[in-house]
Amino acid sequence: MRSPVSSSRAMRAEAGPRRISILGATGSVGTSTVDVVLQQRAAFEVEVVTAQSRADELAAIAIRLGAKLAVVADPDAHGALVAALSGSGIAAAAGPAAIIEAAARPVDLVVAAIVGAAGLAPTLAAIEAGADIALANKECLVCAGTLFNRRAAAVGVGVLPVDSEHDAIFQALEAENASAVDRITITASGGPFRTWTLEQMSRATLAQALKHPNWTMGRKITIDSATMMNKGLEIIEAHHLFDIESDRIDVLVHPQSVVHGFVAYTDGSVIAHMGAPDMRIPIAHCLAWPKRVAVATPRLDLALAGTLTFEKPDLERFPSLQLARRALESGNWATNILNAANEVAVQYFLAGEIDYLDIAATVESALDLATATVGGAEVGSIEAALTIDAEGRRLARETIARRGRLRAG
Amino acid sequence: MRSPVSSSRAMRAEAGPRRISILGATGSVGTSTVDVVLQQRAAFEVEVVTAQSRADELAAIAIRLGAKLAVVADPDAHGALVAALSGSGIAAAAGPAAIIEAAARPVDLVVAAIVGAAGLAPTLAAIEAGADIALANKECLVCAGTLFNRRAAAVGVGVLPVDSEHDAIFQALEAENASAVDRITITASGGPFRTWTLEQMSRATLAQALKHPNWTMGRKITIDSATMMNKGLEIIEAHHLFDIESDRIDVLVHPQSVVHGFVAYTDGSVIAHMGAPDMRIPIAHCLAWPKRVAVATPRLDLALAGTLTFEKPDLERFPSLQLARRALESGNWATNILNAANEVAVQYFLAGEIDYLDIAATVESALDLATATVGGAEVGSIEAALTIDAEGRRLARETIARRGRLRAG
Repeated sequence: MRSPVSSSRAMRAEAGPRRISILGATGSVGTSTVDVVLQQRAAFEVEVVTAQSRADELAAIAIRLGAKLAVVADPDAHGALVAALSGSGIAAAAGPAAIIEAAARPVDLVVAAIVGAAGLAPTLAAIEAGADIALANKECLVCAGTLFNRRAAAVGVGVLPVDSEHDAIFQALEAENASAVDRITITASGGPFRTWTLEQMSRATLAQALKHPNWTMGRKITIDSATMMNKGLEIIEAHHLFDIESDRIDVLVHPQSVVHGFVAYTDGSVIAHMGAPDMRIPIAHCLAWPKRVAVATPRLDLALAGTLTFEKPDLERFPSLQLARRALESGNWATNILNAANEVAVQYFLAGEIDYLDIAATVESALDLATATVGGAEVGSIEAALTIDAEGRRLARETIARRGRLRAG
Repeated sequence: MRSPVSSSRAMRAEAGPRRISILGATGSVGTSTVDVVLQQRAAFEVEVVTAQSRADELAAIAIRLGAKLAVVADPDAHGALVAALSGSGIAAAAGPAAIIEAAARPVDLVVAAIVGAAGLAPTLAAIEAGADIALANKECLVCAGTLFNRRAAAVGVGVLPVDSEHDAIFQALEAENASAVDRITITASGGPFRTWTLEQMSRATLAQALKHPNWTMGRKITIDSATMMNKGLEIIEAHHLFDIESDRIDVLVHPQSVVHGFVAYTDGSVIAHMGAPDMRIPIAHCLAWPKRVAVATPRLDLALAGTLTFEKPDLERFPSLQLARRALESGNWATNILNAANEVAVQYFLAGEIDYLDIAATVESALDLATATVGGAEVGSIEAALTIDAEGRRLARETIARRGRLRAG
């Protein structure tokens, strides 16, 4: 067990505003970050904001935050960005290379909130440039956790988890007592199918899977929540963030999503983080850490919540949890395959082309097949990670095509 | 808001075992302390153990812990202590003055677990001698909190709370972010009368009042739990320990006693301490702080616990909470009166001489009457505290006698 921030810049920070960049500023985590920064204007100085293609939104954010540079990944959006920033004095750039270059601008902290594999290279560039990372892009750790940790340690920066469950562990973890940690627990809402039988799940519709009880999130992560693959990926993240073995990371189903995670110490004490389900809370914590800043967020009222319940996850109905643990024990190549195959399977499910239960089956099949093609491969570079990612996608598509044929026949 | 340990010895401690003394070693907190020390023999060196009168038990503890000195407060127990320690090489002493002298022996930490007003002088002596205090004697803060805080700050020692609720706040409180605390909450089981109507309470028997749902404690504190005066006294303690105003200290009824307390920060994060109801957990935390030691205690299993509930306390049915807040706002003299009158009232209730509802009524009457006799008095010394304590007892007895006559007539 290790604190994720043992060597972070923030611990040796000087006074004055913290200089930050926000990669993926127009997304869900990005806009929550913008909100926190606007609420604590004097505490932060914004260097770079980036987005995939939404030039107008990005320009508006850059202007509100007084950023120095705004970058869109999509070269076709360059003209719109330049036009929207005209007269603001804010520089504009476009293209994947420009994103990586912008991520490497010297700042104290980079919020890494680009979605998917596109976030790998910019986030690593930010680490190499010596910035602490507030990490919302889970692919960095799921696809190449060992590489990211090695580089962060070598450069001497901290990787701060924005995910609410991991930020909960981060908050409950006493850096000086990491060796006194017994176990850590991340909670799961259990999703819309928490109480469904396997038989019911076999007939689950897309609309039913998209009904998340507590959090408002994107479609992909909402489906991951329904299958609990989201929690599987979080076990992998937790392993890399806190250097703790899979069998000391517990998942507990807690439908009210009030307790996000907790750390049990060897002296019997358990420290938990609780809060309303609002991403601004973990974001504010990462942005200000080791200090705290006042942010207007919904306040937790336990008397109003009234009842909190906890139960063990059912591994038979939610096989994704075990698939993730199995992949974690196999290595970075396997967690990378797991993630890629899951992304493809969820895309097909969202498109109505496979059934709900096919998602986990597809991932399992891809993991099985990958053992023969990339089993044991090192993930020593972003390129290696992307190659394995592509293989995972290929194997998932192959599986779905084969099963589709079987079903049709 | 202030961390209770801002100037503690422990923060500047050197390597090697921590030298400790245990005042009140044969009581409930004392024996739990002995158990923790025996589990981590190498981490502690025991200088002094004391008891009221149980010489044989104290001698056995002294021998097991390898203490240098054992002291009984009761001079009549001296002979028995000397006999029981014969050949052990452990020194024996007796009498209240010897207790105070022993408390002042130079150590790193003194566990102050003497019950009642008898704990005031030895605990202050330990502070003056430069030891951190693991405080289980709530009278120190309830009767003379301002004095104790002033002296601890002047000498430069920390007062660490052993009470499970306050230790919970201590564990949830980030010393560096004390100014970012919004509110603190201590939980209460609600006691055996949590769901009773006032009418039912008016007929409550002693046996019913003594049935505490979760903790096994002495009779006095079990009755305080039934009236919730225990929580009232804890509000007062929390005020002094953490330098936080009464209106930012919340009490939440939580019948399962799993969450002991929590701190809500201005960024929306809530840090909670959870654990099995076992006093060895907060004791181990205080003894080892800022480190943690492994201790065999019952582990919390939230899946097994299943359901946690929270509700606001009913101030009409539990008037002691408001009496305590009223006293806290009036000053140390008033909290001293509150505590003394409550002790007397509980004694009468335990003796079957007054009814359950008379307890709070007696305290309220004593507080009213005391305004005229000691209202506004400074509690600048132990002697002053004891004088006001005596006045509180006198006023409580007077109230009970008067009400008794009224009832008879």
